Amino acid sequence: MTLKILSEHACFDGVQGFYEHPSKVTGTTMRFGVYRPPQAKTGPVPVLTYLAGLTCTEETFLIKGGAQRLAAQYKLILVAPDTSPRGAGVAGEDTDWDFGTGAGFYLDATAEPWSKAYRMYSYVTEELPAVVAENFPADMKRQGIFGHSMGGHGALTIALKNPQRYASVSAFAPISAPLQCPWGQKAFAGYLGGDLQAARRYDTVALLEDGARFGGTLLVDQGEADQFLKVQLKPELLEAACRKAGQQLNLRLRPGYDHSYYFVSTFMADHLAHHAAALRA
Amino acid sequence: MTLKILSEHACFDGVQGFYEHPSKVTGTTMRFGVYRPPQAKTGPVPVLTYLAGLTCTEETFLIKGGAQRLAAQYKLILVAPDTSPRGAGVAGEDTDWDFGTGAGFYLDATAEPWSKAYRMYSYVTEELPAVVAENFPADMKRQGIFGHSMGGHGALTIALKNPQRYASVSAFAPISAPLQCPWGQKAFAGYLGGDLQAARRYDTVALLEDGARFGGTLLVDQGEADQFLKVQLKPELLEAACRKAGQQLNLRLRPGYDHSYYFVSTFMADHLAHHAAALRA
Repeated sequence: MTLKILSEHACFDGVQGFYEHPSKVTGTTMRFGVYRPPQAKTGPVPVLTYLAGLTCTEETFLIKGGAQRLAAQYKLILVAPDTSPRGAGVAGEDTDWDFGTGAGFYLDATAEPWSKAYRMYSYVTEELPAVVAENFPADMKRQGIFGHSMGGHGALTIALKNPQRYASVSAFAPISAPLQCPWGQKAFAGYLGGDLQAARRYDTVALLEDGARFGGTLLVDQGEADQFLKVQLKPELLEAACRKAGQQLNLRLRPGYDHSYYFVSTFMADHLAHHAAALRA
Repeated sequence: MTLKILSEHACFDGVQGFYEHPSKVTGTTMRFGVYRPPQAKTGPVPVLTYLAGLTCTEETFLIKGGAQRLAAQYKLILVAPDTSPRGAGVAGEDTDWDFGTGAGFYLDATAEPWSKAYRMYSYVTEELPAVVAENFPADMKRQGIFGHSMGGHGALTIALKNPQRYASVSAFAPISAPLQCPWGQKAFAGYLGGDLQAARRYDTVALLEDGARFGGTLLVDQGEADQFLKVQLKPELLEAACRKAGQQLNLRLRPGYDHSYYFVSTFMADHLAHHAAALRA
């Protein structure tokens, strides 16, 4: 494993680093960020992975989220992957802001020309954890996952499909039902070529309908002034699906809050506390 | 006064806003950010102004600093101006990253062609406070000022020249003696045309030598792994000048920390506590 350090910075008595490595899964050079809390100097600590939203990079959450202070307090490693492969050389990948580069949707594409590089599901669930385990003092038996918007969708679907691996999951303003919103429909049409059965494996509401369950509570914060609330995010579909499935959900609607990191950072402490409790950190 | 709202976002139960207005001082449209804590809904609260460093904008501190959480806790309005005029139309203003646009050095230029627009000292100390007082629930009798790098230089020099107006001052990695470092020498040569007496009015060490004093303690944090420490920042000159002048200084050298906002955000809580105590917030 060749891991290249792009930069490392002291931060809340720990280390905020950015790294890149050649990915076998995507065939590209992938970047990610890791925050190591001070306690990681003396032994492995639990791992909390954050998935960012459309147009974001591995830096977004680590610059804007205000989470390192809390990770230091709760003794958690933070892992933040990029949101897609970059420079894969797929025709059209840089054309749209909501598809292709910066918009990997945390799925494994099956349709051409995307299937070779756009495999963020396998990258996030298999290759990246292996890289983290090999290079950082991470207790991989204690993992949580969360994210924002497209990344909230990623966190919820990944946790529902891997409930044995993740002890905790949460989301800020997730795309709750990509099959039922324009962002998701576009992504599934492009990456999955209209394969509905494949798409249902990447849709939180459909996963719940099809029997997937998470042992803990799904924690979700959603701003009521979010500009994408009604057309793209649709938390009411998540709420209905959880009710019908008997899935525990703690959905908090936040009056006045929008889709920005001013919203995300406001409720970051609640989310880190949720994960820390589940990870017994 | 025409104040245009660029965006407003709920944030820690208060409001993070970005604004622009036609500036009489610079002759350009100036942008700034204001964070209003929840307590500002019911009455005026003290004002803490932050001055950012080279290449930064009015957004940098408000995105990266993690200060809104603390401002909400301490009932402080945060004000963050841009670091220079933009689009002033001065030949060469966009050529260098450390002079001109993004590098106003918080001084009033006297040399041509800079003297018309590059007047950040008057903007920060006169026009911007008037705009804030007119448009926000700000108790202008209780003000503090702080900043990072070039903005730390700005905060220290402004507080030393206006000790009656500011109850508190602090800096992260300030340019301590611009007359004695390349960034400052370049700025003073360009903006002040080599007028040494004018330059001494914008240099913390020279101000102390020339008799300026601040009633409270100058709080300064400086990373020991800062890439600009030895050539540009020179806290040892600040320390010596304070000792000689009898000026109270609390300089903390932080092992391992660099010049980034990963450093700034780590010690933000200390600085907000310092200002809140002085402002009796």
